[in-house]
Amino acid sequence: MGRKTFSINLHKAYQNLTDLSKSFKDKNRYLKNLVKNRNRFKNFSIQINGFSYDFSKQRMDKPILKELFKLAGQARAKDSFSQMVSGKIVNATENRPALHTATRDFTQGKILLNDMDVIFEINKVNKQIKNFIEKIHNKKLKGTTGKSFTDAVVIGIGGSYLGCEFVYTALKHGIEPIINLHFLPNVDIDNFGQIIKTIDPETCLWIIISKSYTTVETMANLNQALLFLKNKNLDPAKHFVTITSKGSPGDDPSGSGLGSFNMFDFIGGRYSVTSAVGGLPLSLAFGFDNFHRFLKGCHTMDLHALNSPEENNIPLTAALVNIWNSNFLDYPALAIIPYCSALSRLCPHVQQLYMESLGKGVTIDGKITNHKTGVIIFGEPGTNAQHSFFQLAHQGSPFPIEFIGVVTPVYNKTQAISKGVYNHQELWANMIAQAKGLAMGKNDDNKAKNFTGNRPSSTIIINDLTPESIGMLLAFYEARTVYEGFILGLNPFDQFGVELGKVLATDINKILS
Amino acid sequence: MGRKTFSINLHKAYQNLTDLSKSFKDKNRYLKNLVKNRNRFKNFSIQINGFSYDFSKQRMDKPILKELFKLAGQARAKDSFSQMVSGKIVNATENRPALHTATRDFTQGKILLNDMDVIFEINKVNKQIKNFIEKIHNKKLKGTTGKSFTDAVVIGIGGSYLGCEFVYTALKHGIEPIINLHFLPNVDIDNFGQIIKTIDPETCLWIIISKSYTTVETMANLNQALLFLKNKNLDPAKHFVTITSKGSPGDDPSGSGLGSFNMFDFIGGRYSVTSAVGGLPLSLAFGFDNFHRFLKGCHTMDLHALNSPEENNIPLTAALVNIWNSNFLDYPALAIIPYCSALSRLCPHVQQLYMESLGKGVTIDGKITNHKTGVIIFGEPGTNAQHSFFQLAHQGSPFPIEFIGVVTPVYNKTQAISKGVYNHQELWANMIAQAKGLAMGKNDDNKAKNFTGNRPSSTIIINDLTPESIGMLLAFYEARTVYEGFILGLNPFDQFGVELGKVLATDINKILS
Repeated sequence: MGRKTFSINLHKAYQNLTDLSKSFKDKNRYLKNLVKNRNRFKNFSIQINGFSYDFSKQRMDKPILKELFKLAGQARAKDSFSQMVSGKIVNATENRPALHTATRDFTQGKILLNDMDVIFEINKVNKQIKNFIEKIHNKKLKGTTGKSFTDAVVIGIGGSYLGCEFVYTALKHGIEPIINLHFLPNVDIDNFGQIIKTIDPETCLWIIISKSYTTVETMANLNQALLFLKNKNLDPAKHFVTITSKGSPGDDPSGSGLGSFNMFDFIGGRYSVTSAVGGLPLSLAFGFDNFHRFLKGCHTMDLHALNSPEENNIPLTAALVNIWNSNFLDYPALAIIPYCSALSRLCPHVQQLYMESLGKGVTIDGKITNHKTGVIIFGEPGTNAQHSFFQLAHQGSPFPIEFIGVVTPVYNKTQAISKGVYNHQELWANMIAQAKGLAMGKNDDNKAKNFTGNRPSSTIIINDLTPESIGMLLAFYEARTVYEGFILGLNPFDQFGVELGKVLATDINKILS
Repeated sequence: MGRKTFSINLHKAYQNLTDLSKSFKDKNRYLKNLVKNRNRFKNFSIQINGFSYDFSKQRMDKPILKELFKLAGQARAKDSFSQMVSGKIVNATENRPALHTATRDFTQGKILLNDMDVIFEINKVNKQIKNFIEKIHNKKLKGTTGKSFTDAVVIGIGGSYLGCEFVYTALKHGIEPIINLHFLPNVDIDNFGQIIKTIDPETCLWIIISKSYTTVETMANLNQALLFLKNKNLDPAKHFVTITSKGSPGDDPSGSGLGSFNMFDFIGGRYSVTSAVGGLPLSLAFGFDNFHRFLKGCHTMDLHALNSPEENNIPLTAALVNIWNSNFLDYPALAIIPYCSALSRLCPHVQQLYMESLGKGVTIDGKITNHKTGVIIFGEPGTNAQHSFFQLAHQGSPFPIEFIGVVTPVYNKTQAISKGVYNHQELWANMIAQAKGLAMGKNDDNKAKNFTGNRPSSTIIINDLTPESIGMLLAFYEARTVYEGFILGLNPFDQFGVELGKVLATDINKILS
């Protein structure tokens, strides 16, 4: 039996928060006054080993925070999370559990789903991945012409692409890839044309990722790749692997090709990085041990999200901050600004994860919502963003910002000093300065140079760019998203809104063909 | 004498539009009813040679459009544009003209600014660029160790980066770069660390772009690059060029280094792609002739924006569509979705161009605005975006979308057929389907599968990815942005909102050092 819900705005806490938000437009409650409180940081931040969340520059006070936790309690958010982790049907509209946490669960020995042990099945796929990539890395498995593999093209779109690309981009700063990955999501033929310029077909592996093995873009790119290999006189069977559901047209249990690896319908695409979807390409790139370290990082955050009391629970608190900003302060967006080049693809991943999970118009029990659901997520790395759209952040229509800082950079061999500081210090000085400037503002009689301030932000800090830290960051965003969905009474696991376009495109294609 | 303005919401047309917008919430005015009109496309689209703008799926009718044109008339938008092009002080707060159009003006023989002929000065720099890059391409100019150059790292941030990166990314699909460009905007040391992994220091040129030659990030990266070259025993003088203002610390008229190329204070960073800022790197990459073709494309759009009557003027009309959506229908954002991988960096460029130009809280004459100014710009290429955040676009809080289609792809040698269509047809089918689905919606008794529709979009179509077409696209966004600024009574050329952060960062650095 799955979770039940009723409209969030019938909760008593929701009504109280609505009242509290009205009085909060008063000038005495501006951020520049709130942050003066000595205990501000202590009261509005949570630290765990390797991860820090500072929300002291959010427009809230203790009574509001208390009421937000009540809201989470009334919505039974923690119960829903616990049900999710243990395999209950939390995805009610599709009658499925949502077991992405099981892919990195080193604690529960067994999760039974009907008669299948999910943990056993996942471990089986991981062993298969480990064996396969070791044969590639040891050069036992080679392409048609006997050359060993140097590159892999990942054909997949949406959830079969964005998470993996984020993690690959983040890790390759610190770990030299053994196999270089290239991503081919788009049906745009120029996406294909650009990639084949950069690879040697004889040393290239193609990884096809599609749960159903019917995704239009992925099948079109597969056909394009098959034609390409044929024209190069290469044997596709020696250059292809598939990641797909058991029994799909791409599943190959007899092993006629190089291999096929199963994904499961109890893990949604946008939550699938830690399944074979990320597991195979990331292990190919960085070795299975590094993928395993990444899973460990995710698991650390999962356990925190599951077990920490509400007041010390980072993903749950961060979900409440979002709900306060969207439902009560009426902000239409959230900018995610990592002060870290390596995290440049975090935002596109979270954009999908969050907007596809929470961009809904109905509650999980099928009622039209009359409260705010998901907001727009956008962002670019800082300091770049400062020289791009931060003009609007400071002086235009305000939106909350989530800063992300990384304590130790990867490249720290030979650093130059400019104006007395290293580049990494300059980067941090800028991040701190932006959060402060947005909150405090600055008065100027020249209105063009006046800063109103009172613009909210949070700051997340991770230690470094190791697989463990990237795992914690990924799992934080997943847990925050599902918590926000649970509290808002939504189903964060379905995506019926993508269907209409597919149907209409098929109709148009019939006319074209 | 520069343009004068008064608050946009005192215009009579603004009041009328406010009234019209109220009646427009009626169900009879839903898009699915509006688009039934036989003449809908004819009345709500504009075509010029090589560029088409279809706004038939915007939530407006003829009386509204008429009133919007009146608003542009009352704001004297076309006069302001004409003043801008002829060198008047349209950037009043900084007491400067805004003469980006002069960098590609093949029509006016002369533009006098005080006693200087702007066109003459620009041509002089372009000649210098042409001579320099020919020496590089002919391998007459080489690095310290006598090897010819293969790569260039562009050090610059914000306006010295985003536009150039967009054009480089777009053109390299169709034109094989002679010199590969790498972009180093961020002060993040890992941005530097990642780039030096991919270049050979002996064959690499460094291009430093900063108007003042004091930009903190750029100077920090310059110092990092100098230290790197020193450690490799290479002579910086044989590996560096600068693009900077006359008389700045990086200006080198005596020619002790490889060269320095001037940029001018009458061109703002975010409008500077067609100046030496884009001219040198893009000519290095693709040859001067291709850069010249790109300028020609820009000039075509400039002439259209300047000379076309309001009703046939694409950038002006597109600016009015934005104003209608932000000021009257209260949409907080605009998504830009090119159905084209090559345009993947268009959105970050337009994000800066638009949000830095229009993200303001005061009118050009220093009064606090009490109308909406710039909105949030975000986006990813389609069909990728469909598998990412389009769930929210269809069923969550609505926002307008700008689709961009490209008629002819670059890679059209060997295309496979899937389900009876080529990939490029599939791409187009999807773009058309999305616009239709968003507008029309679909009724379903299951509310989770119901699509409310009435979600507005525009569609821009360009012919191809040639330099001329990319030039038209770039100049369209520039002209639309300034038109929107002129009509809203803002100064689209200053950016005082970026100053506070800089000051605070300097203070924090003093503590750190």
